[in-house]
Amino acid sequence: MSSKGSSAVAKRPVNKSRAGGPSQIVEAPASKKNGGPKPKPGKMVYFFGATRTEGNSTMKPLLGGKGANLAEMTSIGLPVPPGFTITTDACAAYYKNGQQLPYGLMNEVNKNIAVLEAELDKKFGSNDNPLLVSVRSGAAVSMPGMMNTILNLGLTDASVAGLAAATKNARFAYDAYRRLINMFGDVVMGVDHSHFEEAFKKIKAKYNAKDDTDVPEKGIIELCEAYKGVYQKHVGEVFPQNPFKQLELAIEAVFKSWNSDKAVSYRRIEGIRGLNGTAVNVQSMVYGNMGDDSGTGVAFTRNNATGENAFYGEFLINAQGEDVVAGIRTPKHVDEMPKWNKDVYNQLLKIKGKLEKHYKDMQDIEFTIERGKLYMLQTRTGKRSGIASVRIACDMLREKLIDEKMAMLRIPAGDLTQLLLPSFDPASKKKATTLTRGIPASPGAATGKLAFTAHEAVERARAGEHVLLVRSETSPEDVEGMHSAVGILTSTGGRTSHAAVVACGWGKCCVVGAGELNIDEKKGTVKVAGQTLGRDDVVSIDGSTGEVMLGAISSIEPKLSGDFALVMKLADKYRTLGVRTNADTPEDAQRARDFGAEGIGLTRTEHMFFEGERIKAMREMILAENRADREKALAKLLPYQRDDFVGIFKAMKGLPVTIRLLDPPLHEFLPQDDATQTEMAQMLKISAEKVRRRVAQLHEMNPMLGHRGCRLAVTYPEILVMQVRAIVEATIECLRSNIKAMPEIMVPLIGTKRELAALRTEIEATIAEVKAEQDYKPRLDIKIGTMIEIPRAALTADEIAEVAEFFSFGTNDLTQMTFGYSRDDINTFLPDYLKRELLDHDPFQSLDQEGVGQLVKMGVDKGRSRKPDLKVGICGEHGGDPKSVHFCHRAGLDYVSCSPFRVPIARLAAAQAAIMGEAPKK
Amino acid sequence: MSSKGSSAVAKRPVNKSRAGGPSQIVEAPASKKNGGPKPKPGKMVYFFGATRTEGNSTMKPLLGGKGANLAEMTSIGLPVPPGFTITTDACAAYYKNGQQLPYGLMNEVNKNIAVLEAELDKKFGSNDNPLLVSVRSGAAVSMPGMMNTILNLGLTDASVAGLAAATKNARFAYDAYRRLINMFGDVVMGVDHSHFEEAFKKIKAKYNAKDDTDVPEKGIIELCEAYKGVYQKHVGEVFPQNPFKQLELAIEAVFKSWNSDKAVSYRRIEGIRGLNGTAVNVQSMVYGNMGDDSGTGVAFTRNNATGENAFYGEFLINAQGEDVVAGIRTPKHVDEMPKWNKDVYNQLLKIKGKLEKHYKDMQDIEFTIERGKLYMLQTRTGKRSGIASVRIACDMLREKLIDEKMAMLRIPAGDLTQLLLPSFDPASKKKATTLTRGIPASPGAATGKLAFTAHEAVERARAGEHVLLVRSETSPEDVEGMHSAVGILTSTGGRTSHAAVVACGWGKCCVVGAGELNIDEKKGTVKVAGQTLGRDDVVSIDGSTGEVMLGAISSIEPKLSGDFALVMKLADKYRTLGVRTNADTPEDAQRARDFGAEGIGLTRTEHMFFEGERIKAMREMILAENRADREKALAKLLPYQRDDFVGIFKAMKGLPVTIRLLDPPLHEFLPQDDATQTEMAQMLKISAEKVRRRVAQLHEMNPMLGHRGCRLAVTYPEILVMQVRAIVEATIECLRSNIKAMPEIMVPLIGTKRELAALRTEIEATIAEVKAEQDYKPRLDIKIGTMIEIPRAALTADEIAEVAEFFSFGTNDLTQMTFGYSRDDINTFLPDYLKRELLDHDPFQSLDQEGVGQLVKMGVDKGRSRKPDLKVGICGEHGGDPKSVHFCHRAGLDYVSCSPFRVPIARLAAAQAAIMGEAPKK
Repeated sequence: MSSKGSSAVAKRPVNKSRAGGPSQIVEAPASKKNGGPKPKPGKMVYFFGATRTEGNSTMKPLLGGKGANLAEMTSIGLPVPPGFTITTDACAAYYKNGQQLPYGLMNEVNKNIAVLEAELDKKFGSNDNPLLVSVRSGAAVSMPGMMNTILNLGLTDASVAGLAAATKNARFAYDAYRRLINMFGDVVMGVDHSHFEEAFKKIKAKYNAKDDTDVPEKGIIELCEAYKGVYQKHVGEVFPQNPFKQLELAIEAVFKSWNSDKAVSYRRIEGIRGLNGTAVNVQSMVYGNMGDDSGTGVAFTRNNATGENAFYGEFLINAQGEDVVAGIRTPKHVDEMPKWNKDVYNQLLKIKGKLEKHYKDMQDIEFTIERGKLYMLQTRTGKRSGIASVRIACDMLREKLIDEKMAMLRIPAGDLTQLLLPSFDPASKKKATTLTRGIPASPGAATGKLAFTAHEAVERARAGEHVLLVRSETSPEDVEGMHSAVGILTSTGGRTSHAAVVACGWGKCCVVGAGELNIDEKKGTVKVAGQTLGRDDVVSIDGSTGEVMLGAISSIEPKLSGDFALVMKLADKYRTLGVRTNADTPEDAQRARDFGAEGIGLTRTEHMFFEGERIKAMREMILAENRADREKALAKLLPYQRDDFVGIFKAMKGLPVTIRLLDPPLHEFLPQDDATQTEMAQMLKISAEKVRRRVAQLHEMNPMLGHRGCRLAVTYPEILVMQVRAIVEATIECLRSNIKAMPEIMVPLIGTKRELAALRTEIEATIAEVKAEQDYKPRLDIKIGTMIEIPRAALTADEIAEVAEFFSFGTNDLTQMTFGYSRDDINTFLPDYLKRELLDHDPFQSLDQEGVGQLVKMGVDKGRSRKPDLKVGICGEHGGDPKSVHFCHRAGLDYVSCSPFRVPIARLAAAQAAIMGEAPKK
Repeated sequence: MSSKGSSAVAKRPVNKSRAGGPSQIVEAPASKKNGGPKPKPGKMVYFFGATRTEGNSTMKPLLGGKGANLAEMTSIGLPVPPGFTITTDACAAYYKNGQQLPYGLMNEVNKNIAVLEAELDKKFGSNDNPLLVSVRSGAAVSMPGMMNTILNLGLTDASVAGLAAATKNARFAYDAYRRLINMFGDVVMGVDHSHFEEAFKKIKAKYNAKDDTDVPEKGIIELCEAYKGVYQKHVGEVFPQNPFKQLELAIEAVFKSWNSDKAVSYRRIEGIRGLNGTAVNVQSMVYGNMGDDSGTGVAFTRNNATGENAFYGEFLINAQGEDVVAGIRTPKHVDEMPKWNKDVYNQLLKIKGKLEKHYKDMQDIEFTIERGKLYMLQTRTGKRSGIASVRIACDMLREKLIDEKMAMLRIPAGDLTQLLLPSFDPASKKKATTLTRGIPASPGAATGKLAFTAHEAVERARAGEHVLLVRSETSPEDVEGMHSAVGILTSTGGRTSHAAVVACGWGKCCVVGAGELNIDEKKGTVKVAGQTLGRDDVVSIDGSTGEVMLGAISSIEPKLSGDFALVMKLADKYRTLGVRTNADTPEDAQRARDFGAEGIGLTRTEHMFFEGERIKAMREMILAENRADREKALAKLLPYQRDDFVGIFKAMKGLPVTIRLLDPPLHEFLPQDDATQTEMAQMLKISAEKVRRRVAQLHEMNPMLGHRGCRLAVTYPEILVMQVRAIVEATIECLRSNIKAMPEIMVPLIGTKRELAALRTEIEATIAEVKAEQDYKPRLDIKIGTMIEIPRAALTADEIAEVAEFFSFGTNDLTQMTFGYSRDDINTFLPDYLKRELLDHDPFQSLDQEGVGQLVKMGVDKGRSRKPDLKVGICGEHGGDPKSVHFCHRAGLDYVSCSPFRVPIARLAAAQAAIMGEAPKK
């Protein structure tokens, strides 16, 4: 039985209550007009109905979300079946009392039942047109694990006959009764549902019925008797024939469910604190299954997929929710309703308008039509797609329903990805077979035939095929093939692997570390999930989820609407946090500028060394045996680097460009396989043995914590000199051509002040040297700063700030070291950690504010304590995660830097943080 | 020219001023009897001599170490050539004045020269018995990089004739003059010494002299003229003929030397702050080279190698310091002095006694005999060996010269190693050829013939040979061979490599990561330093320095004297910090108890899985494909583990034993080479392919940050269950045999509270289960705690403390992650870091108090803020480093834990920390 009871159509978008960052949505504050009476001390029950309505939508903490909105809808004159809500305070008192219902509660409940009886002219437990109610839990925050709904409460052996008479439908009445006994036994008294099932089976066998609905009235009446027997056997008492007793037990069961293991664990994990308990909603029953003039439905007041301002939903005639769950009948679209009942349809359209005007947001409603009369059973803010959220916010802004700030808060920043990258059509995806799941390395959707080598990918792409490159891992040699493929899939490596980093930079869909893939490159096959796929098989990968699916899945291409531009304009108006981008090429830089980046926060120079002639010179440098030979090889790299920088400076047109000096360990530039090593030896005219020896010598146990970053500059100062030289030469070249160039030199992996001081001296000396060589007199404003990515750097940030003009938090590495998690290896245990709820999320996706965040705050505070005007940013991938952006705003950072495609997300998230009044502490 | 000038014999132990931890020695506070006059404001010059003595040994900050001790010796009636000291305040004033000598300084200097003239009845610059002085720098702390001594100041063209007349030795007088011109030109005026050399060469050629001493009087007089020419040419002025001008320039040169690059950098690196500047000592000259009744020497008041209470030193007749520097003559032992001049010898013996009584410590003295008269030129605390420091402290305690606390402070704790482990005879070692240097992994000294496989080592050791096992790296299979060898040498791996960890546990000498070794196991050769060594070559390795040397070097076996026991007894009396040990076997546990360990702070359970049948079962477990099969394999390990624990509990006799659950990644237990993999497959009756696949699957990019520690327990709870079961079964077995067992279960690598909470629940459930199975009713007091070794654990220690009864800081891993340094790979850059002074020391040897220490303090404070009685210890190898022990005492830790051989060091260091009043903050 569905928790929606008789009034809900089940096939509807489910509330993703644990959906993490992107789906958080901000609800409109209730209109001030809905003031209503304030809660009275001691009052435990709030009525809603024609007689009086005591609650309103501002009272969610006291009445729960559902109860507050039922009262609100009643107040504004919508047809809501009357009822009352028991407060969350009563629940708190229940627990304070050692799990005893608070004194006076049932007295108050009974008084409200009396009001209900009077209003509806029905009697609770009467054998003549009896009052029946539903009982539902409802906390201030939607929370799974709490009690299911109980319907039809008030039915007894006596009143069921009354219902049969009043409805003139005995089968209906007894069916309602058997449902009550079942639900009550199961939910309130803990009788296993299977016992009831068994009894039903017997009856069905007796009447030779295939489905429940085939059982005749007589059988249903027998079933009620059988169910009462089951109840008595397992509870040890007869099924309560006093409706007030039923109600009391049900209320207590709702209270108890507040502390069920599942609910407690949910609150713990979600960090939900400060709530009193759950409210209990007791509402008079209405029925959508009383004949062809009855029905039930759910709808959104606007299209939740596109955002279009049109009533959008489904309904079923003569139905209860569970009919849909059973999948027997297909609901109709609300557009078809006028043909059935034009009045009701028009009523609903009016209600849509009224609700939107009132709540100032798109609503998700539930309704039931009982014998031609419409009843509203629920309204709440409707979940929507990213595309819809943008359109609805902009439309409502134009309709003057909401103001600019509210429009900003209405769009979950992370959902903007849907507007920027292709994504799979959800309907088509649902039908696909998932083969395995890897690490989502670069978002997007890609479908293609499998190619097993880079060369193959290039050839087949030239021939017009869409190919998906499948490799155990990729290396610099594969770059051209990767570029030719529509997407990249690897069986090893993590988010920092070559494939991941290169693909992410291009915005190309990529899934890495899909360990279950068994790739045979020579045969051109991959085994996975019991299947063997070859070159002609089509596979689809989802770069946002890591899913690897069989066959073609249709995808939706993004279109940037005028609304998107409006949202970005408003975001820039409200945000105080700067947004830069991580870009390594002029193309990336240009794209990021198009997306509104205000500078480059991270240019990774190492990616510039992987192509063609460059990698050769790089390898020559690494294999050189003395400084002179290294310098000779570096001299070959210099012109490439300089030209790269000139290109980026031109693209950024005077915006700051933070260039990070060489960071990865040198062995990443050497080939690891014999064949390529031999090839390389021939090219460099040295023995293969020497290449192998150097590769072996550079091998490290834990390269993440090894000879990389500024440690390279300490042992090979000539590398630093070449890079700084390229930066300064490029800057002077640009300035002399009247192109403003604003480089900032960033030293990676600093752990001590002395390190940075020593390297700073060398950087400054090189700048002076190049200026002298170039006979360039004007002052060159080249800032020198550092990554803060090692815990020790954050701990001693006051010292380090003395020799740095800026800090940029490298939260990828900082997370690795603060947690002791290797990003490349985390997949060996992260799934278990998430499953066992030891972590709420992958800390590489959303910043761990409690742990890593402490170090970030410490770094900012200590740094500014010594140098108040220190510029501080973040260039880890968290810079594009909305929750992390909020954190950065609060921590007082000057800017975040993220990949080009996430720049719009960061801009919006920054605006939301500013609007939400999260004052940065500067 | 030696800085000791004419009064020092050069071949003497040099003050290792940058000697790091072990050599720090605490000087006796000056006796209160030496009160003397307090410094007067404005007074810039302090006289010492017969007329008056204005300074004393408490005035080191004002007068520098040398000046204060010259005054002190004068005060107590020792024959010190009179002179005066210009204060460090005057130096500070010089810098405050923009490098101008402070007003009135030269006036005060001149007045003191007048006192000196009167006292000695000589005139400065007189051509009749002229007053000559030396000028020396001398700060409160001994500091290299400051000005060299200038001797013979006061000589001019006029006075040199007077000196010749007075000494009746013209050659001596002009030799003194040419030395002055040279020194003054070089040191004060910056004339390159080579210019003087050249002039001397010409004179030598002219007189056909081989050595300087072959040049006759006439030549020396000509040399003076030539030197004055050199001086004038390069300075642009004539050599100053006014002795007061000479003095003024020399004083200013000393002041300037305080800010020389070398001195500034030395202070920066040593963290020397708060000093005013350098003092200047102006002292009347005495000469040891005035004939056979003159001489010069240095001595220790006790034997600095053995500590024996006997006068110990060397002297040269008719000599100056530089004669010894030149290596022409061999000094005589002071025992021979009575034969030469019994009076002077007896005088020296009296002075020895007087100085020791006065300074209450062994002294290092310099003296000169001029024409039969003894002069004292310096006294200071003498450096000594570890053995000597123990003996001297205990002797002086018995002699009632010092009290217990002072005796404790007199012994550099780290130097106790010399008493506990064999070490190479320094004389023998000095002559040896160093082949290369690796990482010192386990201290001691080992000499043996090379064995290239474990098997070979076992066989040859059985045959009675001393073999040194040389491997590229060791694996669990090599354990028996390692045990048979006298020492272990590897070409790869760091301090956490298998070889290092196993050897260190055994106290067996081991050097790892000697990367220059080119080992050919098949041929049985190793190439290094241009030599090829084979099975019959003898090599010596020093496990304290990492040196690998050719041939046999005689070593000194340690003998534990009664003095050692006394020192340990006193240490226990004064220390407040507990000392535990890291021990994995009953033997280690026993040895550590013998050394005074008060419990085990770390038992690494993984080492128990490496031997014989155990590794088989371990591998079976790792290769199992489901939980049931893993549990089957683990069941085989259980009895071994239980017996290990029983053995350790028995050895520890009721002292607490902290047992760490499995920590290393599983791949460490699998063979990495093809042959062993195949062998293993056969043994386990599975395909070799499967073994290889599993090995490949378990491969990690950064195993340090991978699937290890508590992460194993999260994904394979059955491993934790087996280990806890073994602990509890062993505990109950012991308790039932009336052996007190006090296990503490320690969970490694915790990063979040949730992790520990979840595992704690499983540990507690297992304890309860075993108790029930065993029908054991009494309460079992098994504490459950965690390592704090991940930065995030320290940052969130308040939360974690809620579910932990104790913390143990794993400062090895904490250092790795706080610095981002892989201990196994640090050798690729650490040497450059030390050379470039970017680090003062290897942070894995002595705790980085500034960075890692912050996290330790944070962990202690946050932990105790939530749980005030939280027990906190440290079990990284820093637990045996004296400086780190001091830090742990100050940070308020309850105990340190270290390897058995370092337990005495930790006990002494803890006592010293307590005595030095470093109050722990609890």
